[in-house]
Amino acid sequence: MARLDLMITNGRILTETGSMHASIGVKAGKIAFIGDSRALPPAEEIIDASNKIVMPGVIDSHVHLELPVGRTVSCDDFASGSVAAAFGGVTTLIDFATQKRGGSLLEAIAERRGVAQAKSAVDFSLHCAITHWNDRVRKEMTKVVRQGISSFKLYMIYAERGWMADDGMLFECFEQASKLGAVIGLHAENPHIISTLVRRAVVTRKKGAIQHALTRPDFTEAEAVQRAIYLASLWDARVHIFHLSTAEGCAIVEEWQSQGYPATAETCPQFLTLTDSLLKGRYGHRYATCPPLRSHDDNEYLWEALEMGSVQTLATDHCSFTRKQKDTWQGDFRKMLFGLPGIETLLPIVFTHGLMAGRIDETTFVRSLCANPAMIFGLYPRKGTIRVGSDADIIVIDPEREVTIKPQRLHMRCDYSPYDGWKLRGFPGLTVLRGRVIQKDGEFLGDQGDGIFIKRNPEVAF
Amino acid sequence: MARLDLMITNGRILTETGSMHASIGVKAGKIAFIGDSRALPPAEEIIDASNKIVMPGVIDSHVHLELPVGRTVSCDDFASGSVAAAFGGVTTLIDFATQKRGGSLLEAIAERRGVAQAKSAVDFSLHCAITHWNDRVRKEMTKVVRQGISSFKLYMIYAERGWMADDGMLFECFEQASKLGAVIGLHAENPHIISTLVRRAVVTRKKGAIQHALTRPDFTEAEAVQRAIYLASLWDARVHIFHLSTAEGCAIVEEWQSQGYPATAETCPQFLTLTDSLLKGRYGHRYATCPPLRSHDDNEYLWEALEMGSVQTLATDHCSFTRKQKDTWQGDFRKMLFGLPGIETLLPIVFTHGLMAGRIDETTFVRSLCANPAMIFGLYPRKGTIRVGSDADIIVIDPEREVTIKPQRLHMRCDYSPYDGWKLRGFPGLTVLRGRVIQKDGEFLGDQGDGIFIKRNPEVAF
Amino acid sequence: MARLDLMITNGRILTETGSMHASIGVKAGKIAFIGDSRALPPAEEIIDASNKIVMPGVIDSHVHLELPVGRTVSCDDFASGSVAAAFGGVTTLIDFATQKRGGSLLEAIAERRGVAQAKSAVDFSLHCAITHWNDRVRKEMTKVVRQGISSFKLYMIYAERGWMADDGMLFECFEQASKLGAVIGLHAENPHIISTLVRRAVVTRKKGAIQHALTRPDFTEAEAVQRAIYLASLWDARVHIFHLSTAEGCAIVEEWQSQGYPATAETCPQFLTLTDSLLKGRYGHRYATCPPLRSHDDNEYLWEALEMGSVQTLATDHCSFTRKQKDTWQGDFRKMLFGLPGIETLLPIVFTHGLMAGRIDETTFVRSLCANPAMIFGLYPRKGTIRVGSDADIIVIDPEREVTIKPQRLHMRCDYSPYDGWKLRGFPGLTVLRGRVIQKDGEFLGDQGDGIFIKRNPEVAF
Amino acid sequence: MARLDLMITNGRILTETGSMHASIGVKAGKIAFIGDSRALPPAEEIIDASNKIVMPGVIDSHVHLELPVGRTVSCDDFASGSVAAAFGGVTTLIDFATQKRGGSLLEAIAERRGVAQAKSAVDFSLHCAITHWNDRVRKEMTKVVRQGISSFKLYMIYAERGWMADDGMLFECFEQASKLGAVIGLHAENPHIISTLVRRAVVTRKKGAIQHALTRPDFTEAEAVQRAIYLASLWDARVHIFHLSTAEGCAIVEEWQSQGYPATAETCPQFLTLTDSLLKGRYGHRYATCPPLRSHDDNEYLWEALEMGSVQTLATDHCSFTRKQKDTWQGDFRKMLFGLPGIETLLPIVFTHGLMAGRIDETTFVRSLCANPAMIFGLYPRKGTIRVGSDADIIVIDPEREVTIKPQRLHMRCDYSPYDGWKLRGFPGLTVLRGRVIQKDGEFLGDQGDGIFIKRNPEVAF
Repeated sequence: MARLDLMITNGRILTETGSMHASIGVKAGKIAFIGDSRALPPAEEIIDASNKIVMPGVIDSHVHLELPVGRTVSCDDFASGSVAAAFGGVTTLIDFATQKRGGSLLEAIAERRGVAQAKSAVDFSLHCAITHWNDRVRKEMTKVVRQGISSFKLYMIYAERGWMADDGMLFECFEQASKLGAVIGLHAENPHIISTLVRRAVVTRKKGAIQHALTRPDFTEAEAVQRAIYLASLWDARVHIFHLSTAEGCAIVEEWQSQGYPATAETCPQFLTLTDSLLKGRYGHRYATCPPLRSHDDNEYLWEALEMGSVQTLATDHCSFTRKQKDTWQGDFRKMLFGLPGIETLLPIVFTHGLMAGRIDETTFVRSLCANPAMIFGLYPRKGTIRVGSDADIIVIDPEREVTIKPQRLHMRCDYSPYDGWKLRGFPGLTVLRGRVIQKDGEFLGDQGDGIFIKRNPEVAF
Repeated sequence: MARLDLMITNGRILTETGSMHASIGVKAGKIAFIGDSRALPPAEEIIDASNKIVMPGVIDSHVHLELPVGRTVSCDDFASGSVAAAFGGVTTLIDFATQKRGGSLLEAIAERRGVAQAKSAVDFSLHCAITHWNDRVRKEMTKVVRQGISSFKLYMIYAERGWMADDGMLFECFEQASKLGAVIGLHAENPHIISTLVRRAVVTRKKGAIQHALTRPDFTEAEAVQRAIYLASLWDARVHIFHLSTAEGCAIVEEWQSQGYPATAETCPQFLTLTDSLLKGRYGHRYATCPPLRSHDDNEYLWEALEMGSVQTLATDHCSFTRKQKDTWQGDFRKMLFGLPGIETLLPIVFTHGLMAGRIDETTFVRSLCANPAMIFGLYPRKGTIRVGSDADIIVIDPEREVTIKPQRLHMRCDYSPYDGWKLRGFPGLTVLRGRVIQKDGEFLGDQGDGIFIKRNPEVAF
Repeated sequence: MARLDLMITNGRILTETGSMHASIGVKAGKIAFIGDSRALPPAEEIIDASNKIVMPGVIDSHVHLELPVGRTVSCDDFASGSVAAAFGGVTTLIDFATQKRGGSLLEAIAERRGVAQAKSAVDFSLHCAITHWNDRVRKEMTKVVRQGISSFKLYMIYAERGWMADDGMLFECFEQASKLGAVIGLHAENPHIISTLVRRAVVTRKKGAIQHALTRPDFTEAEAVQRAIYLASLWDARVHIFHLSTAEGCAIVEEWQSQGYPATAETCPQFLTLTDSLLKGRYGHRYATCPPLRSHDDNEYLWEALEMGSVQTLATDHCSFTRKQKDTWQGDFRKMLFGLPGIETLLPIVFTHGLMAGRIDETTFVRSLCANPAMIFGLYPRKGTIRVGSDADIIVIDPEREVTIKPQRLHMRCDYSPYDGWKLRGFPGLTVLRGRVIQKDGEFLGDQGDGIFIKRNPEVAF
Repeated sequence: MARLDLMITNGRILTETGSMHASIGVKAGKIAFIGDSRALPPAEEIIDASNKIVMPGVIDSHVHLELPVGRTVSCDDFASGSVAAAFGGVTTLIDFATQKRGGSLLEAIAERRGVAQAKSAVDFSLHCAITHWNDRVRKEMTKVVRQGISSFKLYMIYAERGWMADDGMLFECFEQASKLGAVIGLHAENPHIISTLVRRAVVTRKKGAIQHALTRPDFTEAEAVQRAIYLASLWDARVHIFHLSTAEGCAIVEEWQSQGYPATAETCPQFLTLTDSLLKGRYGHRYATCPPLRSHDDNEYLWEALEMGSVQTLATDHCSFTRKQKDTWQGDFRKMLFGLPGIETLLPIVFTHGLMAGRIDETTFVRSLCANPAMIFGLYPRKGTIRVGSDADIIVIDPEREVTIKPQRLHMRCDYSPYDGWKLRGFPGLTVLRGRVIQKDGEFLGDQGDGIFIKRNPEVAF
């Protein structure tokens, strides 16, 4: 019997279908073995996970690293972002390749992929964001899928950035995606009502950060969610709602699901634990993200939806700016930079406020962070599960270890955190990427550039 | 490293979440190891499963062995029934302990458990069928659950057998079951409308076997399903519909599920592959089962519900009589013996007409036969899954091997089969019960009495 | 131009579609004329209705006069009941002819019709209550409809009185009624759950009047309503729920209506204005009616349902007993006499607490008391509307006149009133029956026996 | 007793609640009298309506007379249109005052009202079509309602005409309309999907008239209907869908209604009797209207919705062009003039293909043509009903008289008819406007300019 490369012994392994006490053996980057203590083959390195939780590496399926916005660029690049990922137990990131005005999808992907490949310490993929539509782009979608990118993103807002898809473009993208088995992810908000409300606010000289929330009431999300899924349903296409933030929007998703339509949705830690009251303070603009933070009732509704299975994935929408960057807003909510840091704290927040708080159970925990994003985005079962033959992306957590969040102790370049001072459990003491230990006890052992681009399959029904 | 007892190598393992190529190692009756070919520890016995399907042993969660009906007893006892199970890939049977008129639940269980223990070659449990209700019985339910029986059965019909539960009894049973975390399984048909229609048929001298179907139209099932789930919902109780046979009844279950109520349901091979036209022939009475066979449209609706997940479990309602027994009906459908043989052919029928025919996929296949009944009835993850630490109940199937059904070649005592002459794939070439090979290549290697009573947990949310 | 018999001038006429200022002329018992003051033909008698409300006579479509219950008989007979009707603005009563055990429907009708004809001062009809079912009864239904009785009543409870219809009987009655275009009205409560709860209460020595309400929780009505309409829907039959008392039951009716099924329902003043807290007092047993009084929330839900149109008719379920009769209950809620007086106060209560209180508007007011019962029960447009050619059943109300209820000032034989001391408006100063003034300014001018039996049509779609 | 001006005797009067045999007397333009033959006062003129149908004058609540489109103007002006109305039994027309680019609502109304007043032979009102939005327009809405115009129209398409309202404008218009109790009527189609499909068609050189239908598939209407009612529901505003053409759109309306939202809808004769196959012929462009003609299944669905009450009003969307005008399309469906003639044939088509064909009953007939548009648009009970005090707008129809449609025999200026050669009943032999006979036996007796502007009330709940 061949010697294994790595053995993680005696942990309690959490999977998407339940837990077991067992040891995991790794060979050549893959899980080669799951077994109990009576059947341990020899291994180069043995890590004792007694009294620890062992689970699949987390997939953060929604991040924006080094994103150019206006004249600036978000502060975490693939280097700092992927190192933060390693510390946060995230072993796969999905960022975005955004089509340039009138440009090619493939070019955007090639460029972005190059940037990521050069720096990323964890595995990665890209969603392809389409901002401009014509027959050439339609045909390019096929090639994009063949390159292993099986998801596209459309923005229902952001006309000012040249990104907005109208209903006609949505309609045709869903048509093409349906043929390809690809999933379309959406930023779902109604642009016209928001514009109207922004104009109203400005006319009455209301420009504070809280206006960001007040001009995007719940129904601006709900209406867009309804329209997006309706248009998808015309082609029986796969549709995924990114960063669902409201109970009202979630109820629309649930209504479609209860009628048998397999729409899926993501929510984010900020929509589970933060509220729009944060926008009211002096530094409210630092909490600007889009869609905006919502109410406590929305938080709770989304936790419940997660547990009930109507929201499937948890991701961060990580898009970080320094305080200095954020503070350029000139007191006008229209000029705020949108986005919050999140990769490194994703797992601990969900662990602490979800699992330990009893809001979600263990299988929901693993599904929403690992198995579900893997299934929806075509990574399963290579990623997102503990299974023989899968990539050995494994993390080990000491459930007793508590950390008090301090921005300076985190590894992101962002110099503040919405969770500053929070006491969280769930930070992994060990992060293994394809069999290689890249983080252990707070020490980064990986290498930038060692992360690889993972091809994703289309047509993976959820 | 300890020597394993048994190794099943290189098969394609089907689980409730997908498949993998790997080997399974067994030690002391438990799965000790799942791993790839690079990590094989030594084992006493090695079985090569290359090109074979490996999956958890099937749980037939609905059988009636040696059931007394009127002056006769169904022809398969725990001996022949459990041997047939071994040949059919079924490693766990759930039969029924039926309360005697005014009797004790615990006594009924003790007696029935003794009968099963003496003869059963596979593991087994019992549902507790309540036929008479008072405060003493209510209190006994608690003790029953403590003994490891976490499911009860109520009959909404069969007043003539003294089994019928009226709405008041249903109401109070659900109340108590809800407190205990037990599930109530139901035979759901409306007795009063059926009696009325039977009387009408008899008055007009219509007594042929087909009358059995004609006097139990679809809505007699649907009404009872609606009422049962409604009453359960008053207590937020767990409810499971046995042998769902109609599209109309299934639609009711789906309606409740779509409103968020976690009702579950079973269907049976006969309701997926046979139709009531069989009742019209000379030997139509031999196809009598209750509820009766339905239409082809019902078959297809139920296949689809299985694939969509609105029906969760597949079981047989095995209750066999010989042709001689069946032929005592005197040409009067009211005197027919209800029940069909099924344990041995459950897996091959679902394999052939479900999986191979493309009606259900691999995960649905494993879920409905293994994982779901285990979860609903409190056996999971000890039974129903391939997981380290679970019982080593494993079967190996050569997907290329086709068998033509002949009653005399089967191991049940029933001397006819509704599937006579059908060509089926999916019979296991190997059946392993808790690590012991009890059937191999058509040879029975187990022992009657070696099956053990498995305690089942309550409150296992589905 | 012929001289009219009676002219009611210058009132504000309320109809089911709105109001108008006009005069009404009567000739030979029919409305011969509706016109404005510029077009008044000569008349024998002219009544000035300036500043008054003029509307159709009320139809109380649910009364029990001189009803034998156990060893006693309800205290209002057709004499006192119909006189009270005249004072309360009710010009048509629909009572019940109840089949005797194993007896003939036609005989029951003939007998009851004779009793009513001898004494009634207002027009009347009968619902035919079926208590026993066989093929003879089925055929008799046809004859009953031909005699002008187009509605049947079934009791889903009252097994102890020999009245209970089980689901088989409901099923066949709906079948036959559907063929005849007749409507089936139901007392909808679940008998088995109620029996169970009564047994529980008695076992724990709880026998007070409030137990009547506690043993008939909301869902006992809701379940029966659901089952009744489901069974009706199997035959596309007309179904009317009598004395709907709960929000939960009403929601079931609304669910069916929203799916396009034309079920109709009645509620009563007691379910709009009284609550079960009245059962708690020393004289709580005097408030016993069946179904029992409910909560304030139920009251308000039913008012709203009335205004929204999901409940169509208002009637009294008048079944009065004297205090002496009521007081024979021996402190045991099972021995209480069910029923409340109501005919005389129906209109004023709805006028005061519905129309004047703004809970319902004028068209709902006229529809629920006049037009809707006429339409549902086959009296329209002969009764229930102000239309040329209709019976001149007309009442005139001075909306400013307020009356304080005192049982002794009412004309019913019942010596108490649930509304004792209430200040009500809406008592009519004039009641006209087929053109004849039978009550004026508190003086009875009619004659017992002058009321006639009104034939009712089947198949009047609502 | 005063002498009446006009008496219509012995007809069968149809009303929104049923029929009666009676005579109607008119004094000073109002209905002064409804009575039977025994109560006829003297009158200046007596018209015998024995064996005839008498009903309220029809309200065509959706017409476009002398509408400027591009470089041309629709061919019927208020003169020819209102004369055609008189012949077709239409006594009230509602046309549109369309805001000019950046202009005032009140100015548009004043101008349009002047044009209509100068020429109209029947009574009229205007919907106010808003095409441009700002705070000044918002405030003007209040003044518009005060002038007796209680309905506004928004176009969800027609960006190319400068008419399109986006979601923000819809949102704010509903807000203001809700405060005013006004109703918003909508042209509901999704502009972006249609543009996309038009572009696709043109790219593939498909320009025939049938492309008009093919580029506006059913869901382009359904999506817009859903969005419109959703936006209305945010303000609890009154919303009316104009010219509903598809089963799919209608199902959306019904879904909202079944959830209790009082959305209303109109359909037109062309969507009940014509199909898009007409667009395929050589003269297909002459059948262009917007939305386009649909399928036979849509026709039948809409008839049923009318009878079930989910569609409330029937109107024509009359917008006629001569053959010469229509023929200027240059073989390009994008250049077609949209609109069909209809005022004169509205009543006969609905009479023949609806009432006589048994698709709708008499009350639905009168409701959809008379009472419902009157109620929804604030004319009731002055218009739309036969009631004492209402305007004496009355028509008399000989149900036996059949007319074969020939364009040259009609009174519209349009020189063709989609109904050419159809045999229709239901043309009125008498049309009375406010007590004056304006058409008798095919002779026009009215005067252009005699029609008056009718002020309409807001907040008339339907």
